[in-house]
Amino acid sequence: MAKKLKTTTKKNTKSKVLKEPPVILVTNDDGVTAPGIKNLVQAVKDLGKVVVVAPDKPQSGMGHAITIGQPLRLHHLSTDDNVEIWSCTGTPVDCVKLAVDKVLHRKPDICLSGINHGANHSINVIYSGTMSAAMEAAIESIPSVGFSLLDFSIEADFEGARKYARIITEKMLQSKLDKHTVLNVNVPAVPASLLKGMKICRQAYAKYEEDFIDREDPHGRHYYWLTGEFVNFDKGKDTDVWALAHQYVSIVPVQFDLTNYALKSKLEKTWK
Amino acid sequence: MAKKLKTTTKKNTKSKVLKEPPVILVTNDDGVTAPGIKNLVQAVKDLGKVVVVAPDKPQSGMGHAITIGQPLRLHHLSTDDNVEIWSCTGTPVDCVKLAVDKVLHRKPDICLSGINHGANHSINVIYSGTMSAAMEAAIESIPSVGFSLLDFSIEADFEGARKYARIITEKMLQSKLDKHTVLNVNVPAVPASLLKGMKICRQAYAKYEEDFIDREDPHGRHYYWLTGEFVNFDKGKDTDVWALAHQYVSIVPVQFDLTNYALKSKLEKTWK
Repeated sequence: MAKKLKTTTKKNTKSKVLKEPPVILVTNDDGVTAPGIKNLVQAVKDLGKVVVVAPDKPQSGMGHAITIGQPLRLHHLSTDDNVEIWSCTGTPVDCVKLAVDKVLHRKPDICLSGINHGANHSINVIYSGTMSAAMEAAIESIPSVGFSLLDFSIEADFEGARKYARIITEKMLQSKLDKHTVLNVNVPAVPASLLKGMKICRQAYAKYEEDFIDREDPHGRHYYWLTGEFVNFDKGKDTDVWALAHQYVSIVPVQFDLTNYALKSKLEKTWK
Repeated sequence: MAKKLKTTTKKNTKSKVLKEPPVILVTNDDGVTAPGIKNLVQAVKDLGKVVVVAPDKPQSGMGHAITIGQPLRLHHLSTDDNVEIWSCTGTPVDCVKLAVDKVLHRKPDICLSGINHGANHSINVIYSGTMSAAMEAAIESIPSVGFSLLDFSIEADFEGARKYARIITEKMLQSKLDKHTVLNVNVPAVPASLLKGMKICRQAYAKYEEDFIDREDPHGRHYYWLTGEFVNFDKGKDTDVWALAHQYVSIVPVQFDLTNYALKSKLEKTWK
């Protein structure tokens, strides 16, 4: 079949592409019932066949965790209006792996993750289940985008995020980008009419300065709650944090080759 | 006090450094009782004051997960022979954060993670709790190294890994490397005498091709076990996978700025 396809004319190939709507895998880390993922589906559902495979419970901060020590389950929730919805007992990364192997039985044309309730700019890309799911897809040669809105609230206004999720998904489907492409998209928490457009950025060196709240249980033993204050150490005007502070939708292209090539060169010369 | 130090001569500063042994934070993802972490402590305990803060249970595959929804606990296990040992109920990344804030009350001079039972080369750097702990330290401006031995066994022979853990830790303590330095070190599972030395490498594009084993529970419902076959798609001779196959200890310098700068430039020109 593959050989036969190669012999068709360019025109035929194009019309074939037009006939077959793209398969769009949607996941997140806030769980399958979160308003954010419903808004994402709403934004893109007429661009292709949408299949949702998302965690059955919140999985924020799970980073690139995978489930090794216990089995996973999938539950089919609904199929209607060109959208198929499944929940999964695992992490966001598990969802992507299981979706490809046991739900789609093929690689989707694109993977969209989010829309996350809360920011995933700067160093948060590393802790974020939303972005780890997108990264996992890209490792599997599926172009992907993670979307986040800078509003934790369950009643957040997703209008602007929906608008740009659609614009960016259309651009991704139309562009001939590398199959390992991952974009980290964050949307400021302002009314859609105030958004100034999109900005391609680098990841800021900005992070949470951690502190743990120390409490005592009824038996006099200590326990600690993670908390922290966000601090931006990066004064650059080409960062995602700068763009978001100036009401732009930030887009950071992300990679999963973590090699520090500058340090590699240095060590090759000095660590003899 | 800081001001006073600045006014001392270079010679005095040097002798001061010599007088105060470095504080070495040790953690892992296999848990505080794993042979790997005991071997790491053994390898470096006379190089400084060693403080172990490690998970109280195995945390392999936890990636950069952090604990947000529940509190954490610390347990002091022992202090002797210049080594202080604590267990923590959280993930490897939680261990680093808690160690700095609630055990050391300062940044250690170096963080060592491992020695992991099993490989963390190539794409595994992203899933690995061992490497995420090291990365977390580097984000916190603590130079760090993650060590892994290519042998899952509880009875693995750590002699070669111990030898190179010591050599590399000494080099790190002596070198004036950036405070955000992270090294991913993997050691082949061969007798120490057969190791050919160290090689500075890049991360190979090699990964597990996933497959899930599909089983039925006694109620006829499906459940899935993650499994997979390791495949190397990268034929380069400068990769960690190549070095390990040729009996070298692989050292990949790692970074946490995930920006794909090449794609950033491309999108800036084309996504107008």
